[in-house]
Amino acid sequence: MACYLVCDFGGTKLSAAVMETTAVPHAASNWQSRQRVFSPPGADRAYDIQTMIALGRELLAGRQPTAVGVSFGGPVNHQTGMVYLSHHVPGWESTPLQAILAEAFAAPVFVDNDADIAALGEYHFGAGQGLDSLFYVTVSTGIGGGWILNGRPWRGHQGLAGEIGHTLADPAGPLCLCGKHGCVERLASGPYMAQDLAARGVIGSPITGERVAELAAQGQPDAQEILQRGAWALGVGLGHAANFINPQRFVLGGGVTKSGDDWWRMVRQTAVATALPEFRFDIVPAALGDDAPLWGALALAARLDKS
Amino acid sequence: MACYLVCDFGGTKLSAAVMETTAVPHAASNWQSRQRVFSPPGADRAYDIQTMIALGRELLAGRQPTAVGVSFGGPVNHQTGMVYLSHHVPGWESTPLQAILAEAFAAPVFVDNDADIAALGEYHFGAGQGLDSLFYVTVSTGIGGGWILNGRPWRGHQGLAGEIGHTLADPAGPLCLCGKHGCVERLASGPYMAQDLAARGVIGSPITGERVAELAAQGQPDAQEILQRGAWALGVGLGHAANFINPQRFVLGGGVTKSGDDWWRMVRQTAVATALPEFRFDIVPAALGDDAPLWGALALAARLDKS
Repeated sequence: MACYLVCDFGGTKLSAAVMETTAVPHAASNWQSRQRVFSPPGADRAYDIQTMIALGRELLAGRQPTAVGVSFGGPVNHQTGMVYLSHHVPGWESTPLQAILAEAFAAPVFVDNDADIAALGEYHFGAGQGLDSLFYVTVSTGIGGGWILNGRPWRGHQGLAGEIGHTLADPAGPLCLCGKHGCVERLASGPYMAQDLAARGVIGSPITGERVAELAAQGQPDAQEILQRGAWALGVGLGHAANFINPQRFVLGGGVTKSGDDWWRMVRQTAVATALPEFRFDIVPAALGDDAPLWGALALAARLDKS
Repeated sequence: MACYLVCDFGGTKLSAAVMETTAVPHAASNWQSRQRVFSPPGADRAYDIQTMIALGRELLAGRQPTAVGVSFGGPVNHQTGMVYLSHHVPGWESTPLQAILAEAFAAPVFVDNDADIAALGEYHFGAGQGLDSLFYVTVSTGIGGGWILNGRPWRGHQGLAGEIGHTLADPAGPLCLCGKHGCVERLASGPYMAQDLAARGVIGSPITGERVAELAAQGQPDAQEILQRGAWALGVGLGHAANFINPQRFVLGGGVTKSGDDWWRMVRQTAVATALPEFRFDIVPAALGDDAPLWGALALAARLDKS
């Protein structure tokens, strides 16, 4: 009997779950226990780590884990389990998270960043089962992705692969925080679309990516234009990814993917128009939604990424 | 003692070579015999295949090959060794080249397209030795590339990966044969640069990619501008490739890479500016030059791509 503890730490919330199983985990496997907690304002690294350990112990209820898998919302060295930093919480710079948790749980611990983990989750348990290759892209506050090639994660030489958000869709477009103009993220992410709509004087408080999609659905022309431009930019990025790597499928997750049929139509149409005509791929919604990181952490803990 | 026969068929010329060795082939290994022949105008598939077999037999001189590796200038199914077509010679559609040569030489035969093969050659014997990942790009009549990821070729779900030439550098740029505007190939390939220079009324007969580079070196301002714009476009494509895949090194081959230091400087500078700042990679000239396909075919015949 194997017992896996998995954690998903995004920055403001922490999810954890336990699975006991005699078989290799699969899509129909069940969590024995599962819980989500939110960090209070002002929480720091010490608080977050204490919470991870306390929540894990509570869910384990005295059981010894076979292995622990952790999805972290920020850049990580997956080989050493060292966190480079968190984009949301101060103080995470150079944290040996793997070593800290291995000591606390007396078990092997595997840590990776959320995009690579979500790709792994969708590949083993969601919209990518049985494929040879996929590119998982989260379209949310930021836009980034994780690759599965030949049935294994491809993380890049430095672990940085998947930065579709900072490829160019429109070099004549608006300035991105990264310093370039017309990046996919600058045009297609929720906060940037909201910012562009607010800049046109469209009223709302707060204007968020969800609100842009709502207004577009209600027929507000500026919202429609900005949302379609975002879908177009993402489609250019996916078409480029196809030309470079020729993956079998694209799996899209994150809040912006709930923006309706017109958004999906524009993404697909632009990706097909951007890729060379002989390329075949499909573009589908993530199947696991917000649970993708927990499932991906399970795949990591059960070493499915090495199989 | 292993005996490898390797062939490189581009369209107008055929190179072949034989290596007998007791060790795993390496960068300092020597060819026992080697020859290059040109196809006469009007040569067709039947002629080309007859020539491959005749030249192979001549070089083998009665020896039985352990395996045969073939680089083909056109799209190939590397698993079946079926040639889809040649861009240069009529009649190659759906040719079971692997089966034909396996019968002729009574040996296992491995066939792949020239960009993937050149990547494999540079990885095992040239500018990519000892790396975990590289993207080989040929910048010539066309622009395309081959990936090595985790020490193995990544050819794509349909075998089409590496089409950097038809990613976009400048959507406001001139129309490419592929139907899009401002593709890397449209701006940076030899014939297109020559066409753009001729369109400006710069005289020469014929105007080729080499001639554009010569005129630029002599200070002709239109030639300089067109060559630098090409280098810029290629740099954008390489920066995008970095953001998507985070390879350790880019290896550039093909005639246009002989365009001088200014060209290399612009390629490198633009690639770095296009990739996110934390990305580290280098961009180096191919080490094997025109021999990369023969060496890659050797790697294929010796099954180094599976090791």
